[in-house]
Amino acid sequence: MSHKVEILSVGTELLLGSIANTDAQMLSQGLSALGLNVFWHTVVGDNPQRAREAVELARSRADIIITTGGLGPTCDDLTKNVLAEVFGKKLVYHQESLERIKDYARVTGRPLTENNFQQALVPEGSTVLVNDWGSAPGCAFEADGVHVIMLPGPPSECRPMFHHRAVPYLQALSEGVIASHTLKLFGIGESAMEAQLRDEMNAMSNPTLAPYAKEGECELRVTAKAPTQEEAQALLLPKVEELKARFGALVYGVDVPSLEYVVLEGLKARGLTLGTAESCTGGLIAKRLTDVSGASQVFRGGVVSYTNEVKHGVLGVPQALLDQYGAVSEPVARAMAEGARQALGCDLALASTGVAGPDRDDRGNEVGTMFVAIAAPDGTHVRPLHLGGRPVRGRLRTQTAHHALDLARRWLSGLPLED
Amino acid sequence: MSHKVEILSVGTELLLGSIANTDAQMLSQGLSALGLNVFWHTVVGDNPQRAREAVELARSRADIIITTGGLGPTCDDLTKNVLAEVFGKKLVYHQESLERIKDYARVTGRPLTENNFQQALVPEGSTVLVNDWGSAPGCAFEADGVHVIMLPGPPSECRPMFHHRAVPYLQALSEGVIASHTLKLFGIGESAMEAQLRDEMNAMSNPTLAPYAKEGECELRVTAKAPTQEEAQALLLPKVEELKARFGALVYGVDVPSLEYVVLEGLKARGLTLGTAESCTGGLIAKRLTDVSGASQVFRGGVVSYTNEVKHGVLGVPQALLDQYGAVSEPVARAMAEGARQALGCDLALASTGVAGPDRDDRGNEVGTMFVAIAAPDGTHVRPLHLGGRPVRGRLRTQTAHHALDLARRWLSGLPLED
Repeated sequence: MSHKVEILSVGTELLLGSIANTDAQMLSQGLSALGLNVFWHTVVGDNPQRAREAVELARSRADIIITTGGLGPTCDDLTKNVLAEVFGKKLVYHQESLERIKDYARVTGRPLTENNFQQALVPEGSTVLVNDWGSAPGCAFEADGVHVIMLPGPPSECRPMFHHRAVPYLQALSEGVIASHTLKLFGIGESAMEAQLRDEMNAMSNPTLAPYAKEGECELRVTAKAPTQEEAQALLLPKVEELKARFGALVYGVDVPSLEYVVLEGLKARGLTLGTAESCTGGLIAKRLTDVSGASQVFRGGVVSYTNEVKHGVLGVPQALLDQYGAVSEPVARAMAEGARQALGCDLALASTGVAGPDRDDRGNEVGTMFVAIAAPDGTHVRPLHLGGRPVRGRLRTQTAHHALDLARRWLSGLPLED
Repeated sequence: MSHKVEILSVGTELLLGSIANTDAQMLSQGLSALGLNVFWHTVVGDNPQRAREAVELARSRADIIITTGGLGPTCDDLTKNVLAEVFGKKLVYHQESLERIKDYARVTGRPLTENNFQQALVPEGSTVLVNDWGSAPGCAFEADGVHVIMLPGPPSECRPMFHHRAVPYLQALSEGVIASHTLKLFGIGESAMEAQLRDEMNAMSNPTLAPYAKEGECELRVTAKAPTQEEAQALLLPKVEELKARFGALVYGVDVPSLEYVVLEGLKARGLTLGTAESCTGGLIAKRLTDVSGASQVFRGGVVSYTNEVKHGVLGVPQALLDQYGAVSEPVARAMAEGARQALGCDLALASTGVAGPDRDDRGNEVGTMFVAIAAPDGTHVRPLHLGGRPVRGRLRTQTAHHALDLARRWLSGLPLED
């Protein structure tokens, strides 16, 4: 049987437009990847009557209901209460959740209120979805042939709760196995990739191929459905190899979490250390590297040189270069990377300098003019960038950080630094 | 009469998660500003039956329906056909739109097809909303006491079509305006804040008060409805002042985008410069400060000292302190801030050191043990943190960065550094 899914989001902040419903987008992507059909997104506010009507409607037309939001104390656990009511279930205390709430209060020294304990109430017969990313637990139950999964609203909780808690639950509902592999690419646009693959994508049915664009990177997800994991993998692997061969050095990994993760793994594998010297990215490259736990094994540190004095004083960039070429230049990018390598005592150093906007710099360099560099034992390489189009500060910084990390992963993999 | 609005979005790409429903967010913001209450967001795919059911439901519960998407030739003008059908209206050619379509084809040299002419069909009695930002016109009509407005789906068309075409139409329907102010707080938990305000929130009707939690910060939004902007502000401002007085130093700003923004504005106002020395936050504080354009006026730079060698070599932290107390300690946090102040030549410097996890450090400090410090002309202050509970690397880093920035904004505002 083919499942019909409704995503029901509860939150007045969505109806006021304070935030976009990115939870629904994330869930839709994930559910599609599981082979489940999402037919409706519904949003209601923190209003019991309208929430109740929405749940009743969802129950009448969908056989999987996934809710987001309305779980914490500020909304009186609206979603949980309404679902229990509509499905005729009592709320019962979940002992382990009670303990977790008490632990949390003890460790943080925050006073416990009646509100906090309400979070440990779940509809009877529920599977509790332990929330390691926030305080309100989720839960799942089945009633009258309808599966209900409740997830917290904050995206930083909803995403991991979906992937680590809801997906295993949902996988049990689908017949056979759905497996997928994700190729990560950097250096090709989504439309270029899609144009190359469009005919093939349309012709494929199992496995299927789906491209995603993500902040200047691209992903290609290959998904297969089969009676067993082995059969699914047998369908997937030849396709993955074919795509890797086709896109060559543009593929930076398969089933890897991020470019920075690949760089750190490459450093560990080769026993090398890394440092950074950042101007336009202002700490973003270091921040991304240290987002990954275990980074301290190979990442020594960085310098955010937002002024010429710091470039000269801390990184040792010659004043003459700064005067002659300006901070946004190939020679300064080179000197920053080499200076960081020396000052931080690391094997490899990455540098960034450029104009992130909103205005041109005092030498008239346009917004989006960027240089990233890598200093390595075998020499220094600079990649000039012209990130034009519709330049937005945040996007320019993200793209520049991608490019710097791309230099490192290419160097570490022994690939040509430029295509 | 108070209006009830439903935003109905038609598009399979939303249900697949290819894009987020930013149209609904933009419309919700704009409609709230007009004093119109958005009670539902609904998304269905390019499927006539489900679209018809959604329109029938919307007609039964809302008195203003705003649709996005499903207007162009690629979806057979699904939305327009379904709305005409449900409201029992014939489709008639709109002469001016026909001319525009012919003009457009002539100018671009594109051949005209039957599909193109279909775009000039509108439900009889409609007001046509001329689309100067794309090809498919929008339209609006009123039937059985329900107002229907159809807008194109691409955000680059939906936004101007809403502001320049739909708003004038809607203004005639709305009574009064809705205005709001948002207080931003740091240093109080969402449940604690909510417990303090619950009775008041329940008792208030105009203005209303709504709390939001956001990555370790809290927001309080006060919203009022009144016939004019002036009357709305007169309802809001006394409440805002009362809340500011009640939460005191916990309030870091009203209608401000972020803590880092407040810190940068404080620095500019006082003509001071800032630098950072980051260990556990790994560049996050610098990254957040430089996310804000214009940061370079007052932010000089930072050092990410992820190893003791960098703490000693670049920041000048005495080796004896590192040996005696370890990197995660009050004396090292102090020395890092003072060292950054000197090395970067800035008036104020922030430092962070701690255990972000997933494991304890080699001295046995628990995950979540953190120190943030500020070095200033009048001395150095260290705030020790025990961020326990369910420690998640990303959240610990975010919280630690909040605390460091909080020290800076308190110092800059002349507030006590600790409550």
